[in-house]
Amino acid sequence: MSTAIENEVIYKAKLAKEASLEMQNKTTEEKNTALLAIAEQLLIDQAFILKENAKDIEYGHKLGLSESIIDRLMLNPERVKAMSDAIHLVIDLPDPIGEELDRINKDNGLIISKRRVPLGVLGMIYEARPNVTIDAATLSLKTGNTVLLRGSSSAKHSNMALVTSIHQALKRVQFPQNAVLLIEDTSRETAKTLFNLTEYLDLLIPRGGKDLIDLVVREASVPVIETGAGNCHVFVDATAKYDIVRPIVLNAKTHRPSVCNAIESLLIHDEFFNNYGKELLETVSIAGVKIYGDEKVCKVFPTAFKATKEHYAKEFSDLIISVKTVNSVEEAIAHINQYGTKHSECIVSETSKNVEQFLNGIDAAVVYHNASTRFTDGFEFGYGAEIGISTQKLHVRGPMGLPALTTTKYYVNGDGQIRL
Amino acid sequence: MSTAIENEVIYKAKLAKEASLEMQNKTTEEKNTALLAIAEQLLIDQAFILKENAKDIEYGHKLGLSESIIDRLMLNPERVKAMSDAIHLVIDLPDPIGEELDRINKDNGLIISKRRVPLGVLGMIYEARPNVTIDAATLSLKTGNTVLLRGSSSAKHSNMALVTSIHQALKRVQFPQNAVLLIEDTSRETAKTLFNLTEYLDLLIPRGGKDLIDLVVREASVPVIETGAGNCHVFVDATAKYDIVRPIVLNAKTHRPSVCNAIESLLIHDEFFNNYGKELLETVSIAGVKIYGDEKVCKVFPTAFKATKEHYAKEFSDLIISVKTVNSVEEAIAHINQYGTKHSECIVSETSKNVEQFLNGIDAAVVYHNASTRFTDGFEFGYGAEIGISTQKLHVRGPMGLPALTTTKYYVNGDGQIRL
Repeated sequence: MSTAIENEVIYKAKLAKEASLEMQNKTTEEKNTALLAIAEQLLIDQAFILKENAKDIEYGHKLGLSESIIDRLMLNPERVKAMSDAIHLVIDLPDPIGEELDRINKDNGLIISKRRVPLGVLGMIYEARPNVTIDAATLSLKTGNTVLLRGSSSAKHSNMALVTSIHQALKRVQFPQNAVLLIEDTSRETAKTLFNLTEYLDLLIPRGGKDLIDLVVREASVPVIETGAGNCHVFVDATAKYDIVRPIVLNAKTHRPSVCNAIESLLIHDEFFNNYGKELLETVSIAGVKIYGDEKVCKVFPTAFKATKEHYAKEFSDLIISVKTVNSVEEAIAHINQYGTKHSECIVSETSKNVEQFLNGIDAAVVYHNASTRFTDGFEFGYGAEIGISTQKLHVRGPMGLPALTTTKYYVNGDGQIRL
Repeated sequence: MSTAIENEVIYKAKLAKEASLEMQNKTTEEKNTALLAIAEQLLIDQAFILKENAKDIEYGHKLGLSESIIDRLMLNPERVKAMSDAIHLVIDLPDPIGEELDRINKDNGLIISKRRVPLGVLGMIYEARPNVTIDAATLSLKTGNTVLLRGSSSAKHSNMALVTSIHQALKRVQFPQNAVLLIEDTSRETAKTLFNLTEYLDLLIPRGGKDLIDLVVREASVPVIETGAGNCHVFVDATAKYDIVRPIVLNAKTHRPSVCNAIESLLIHDEFFNNYGKELLETVSIAGVKIYGDEKVCKVFPTAFKATKEHYAKEFSDLIISVKTVNSVEEAIAHINQYGTKHSECIVSETSKNVEQFLNGIDAAVVYHNASTRFTDGFEFGYGAEIGISTQKLHVRGPMGLPALTTTKYYVNGDGQIRL
C-alpha cells in the first residue's frame, strides 16, 4: 500500500519536474492561450463537473459533514461560471516571468542581469473547496510553474473532474498536460510523502485549517509558505475617538467573521474603557457577538463570560471575541506579540508616539492605524489574485501576488572574462 | 546536562528576542556608532584576543587538526586589523531598514506602505573561522537584528574573547549588549536545540561544510537559508573558441579551488573534444589538476583516472576535476541538473540558441555565458558584504546582500476606513 502511494506521488512528481523544464520557455502569450482554453473548457464540461461534484456532496451528507463544509464543497452553474471568470482575471495580470530586477554592468565588460524565473514544481495541499484546484492550476501556469495538487478526499470526484477538464484544454492548445497533476490517492500518507520530496518539489503551500498548516511547517523539509492563521487584534488606545473605534471594531469582527483578517480579540486601554467600555461592549453584543472578558470587562458588562489564556490564543472564526483591558501601549504590544499569529494588527489612537511605537513594535505582516484589519487581502492591495496571506517572514509576507510564486536567477554574459 | 544546555540556549534566545524589540527602533546613526565602537574595541583588545586564540590553536594542535584548519582558526595582528577594517565597510553600506518598497494610495484614503524591517533574531551555526563571529555580529547589527551565535568548540576561546570585546564596545555606546549573544556550550545538543526554537528565532544560517548544512536543512523547523555547497560545471559547447575556453577553465578550477564558486566538473561536447580535448586536458593537468574522466577522456588522455557517479556528485574543493564528454546541450543540461548544487554553471559557446537553452534550462542561482564561475560573490556583484551564497530558491538566491537579513511589513494608515 505504502509503496503504491509513493509510486503515484513520486511518479507524478517526476512528470511534473520534466514538464517544468518545458514550462520555463513558454511565452506570456502561450500561457494566456492555455488559460483561456481552460476558462472555456470549464463551461463546456459544466454538466460533467456538476455530476461528479454531486457524488462528493452525496458522500459528504452520508459522512454527516456540516452544512458549512457541504456549502464550500458544492458547485452549481454560477460557481462554475465564477471559476471560469476568475481565470480571465489571471490572464489580465502582468506576467512576472522574465522581468529584469537588477542589472550590473561591470568594468571588465561582464553584464549581470537578475531576472524573475519560475520556481519549478509547486505542491499544493488543500482542504474541501474545489475552486482551489482551479486557482492553484491557473496561478501556477501563469508563473511558468507546474503544480502537483493534493486535495481532500471529500472533494475527490470534483477535483478529478476539474483536472480532467484542464487536461482537455491543455491538450487542445498543445500545452504539456503534466503542467497540472492531481494526486488521486487522498490518504494521509500521500500528503506526508510530499513533505520530503526535496528532489522534485520547489515549494509546498498548505491551504486549510491551522492543524494542517502547523503539521506541514513542522514536518516538511520542502520549503513551505505558511498562510492563513489569523488571531488578529484591535487595540483601542486612551486617546482613541469613539466614532472611529465603533465602526472599525464592528467591521473587523462582524463583516465576515470566518476569514483570517477578522479580529478575534479586542484590547482596550483603561482610560478609554472607563469612558466608553460599556457602550462599546453593548454595541458589539447587540451585533450578535459573544464576549469573553477579563475581570474588569465582566464587572462592567455582566453578561460577558470569563476569558482564559485559551480564549486569548484562539482563532474563533466566528461571532465570538475576547476582550482585555490594558494600561499601556507596551502592555498591548506584549500581549499581541505573545498571542497573535503575525497576521494583521490594529491600533486606534490619536497619540502619534503610541501609534509609532505600536506599528514598529508589533511583529506582524500588516499593521494598521485607524482602519479595519479586513483590508488585508490580495485584491484590496491591488495584486489582482488571491494566493493567500503569508504569515512568515522569509520570501513573502502579507498578501501574496504572482511574484511570490517565482524566484530569481542571475544571468551573466561575458566574452571570456576571468577573475583576477 | 540536557536541561542545562536547553537552559543556556533558551535563556539567551529570550534575551535576544527582548533586545530585538529595542533594536528595531535604532537609527542608522546609532547602529553605525555601535559598529565603529566595535571596530575600535577589537584593536584595543587585540592582546587579549590573541592570547585567547592561542589557547584554541594549542588545543587544535593537541587534537591533531589539519594545518589548513589551524590556519583558518589562527588570528594575528594583521587578521585582527582586517576584521576591524571590514567593519568600516559595513558602516559604509546603505542601511536597508525603513526603505519603502511600495506605496499604494487607495481611493478610500488608505495609505499602504510596504517597508523593510529587521527579521528579529538570527541564529548562526558555524565552524572554525573566528572572523565569522565578527561578520555575523556586525551584519546583524547593521540590519537591526539581534544574533545568537553558535560557533565550533575548536574556536571557543577566540569566539568568547571576540564577543567580550563586542560587549565592551556596545556598553560604551549604551547599546543593548544582548544584541549579540554567544552560546558558550559547544556540544552538538546546543545546535540541535536551536533547530526548533521557532518561538524565538526568525532565521537560522548554517555556515560550514555540506554535512552541517544538510543536517540543518533536514532537521530545522526554524526557517533556514541554505548556503555554500558548490558542485559547479563548465560546459564547453561544439562551437566554443579554444582561446576563451582555456582561461575560463583554468581560472574556474585553479584560481582558488577550495571555494564554492570554483568548478568541480567539466563537460565537453564531442565535436570540441575531438579537436581540442587532448590539448585542454594537458593544460589542466600541467596546472596541477588531477583528472577523473569518462571512457573517451581516458582514451585520449591515459593518465586520467576513471570517473564514477560519485566523482560527478562530489565537491572536491581541491585541484581535482571530473571530465565528461556529451553530445548535445540537452545532455549537458540534464547532467548538471542531476549532479549540480544549483550554485553557478557556465556554458562556453558561440551558438546563441544553445546559450539561451542552457541559461534557461539550468536550475541554478547564477548562470554564465563565456565567463568564469569565480565571479559569484557578494563583493563582485556589488553588494559590499559577504553573507554567503544562497543556493535555495525562496527569499534570496545567489550572493546575499544586507536585504537578505530583512523582511517587509505593510504599514496601513487610515482615519477610520472600514471594508464595505
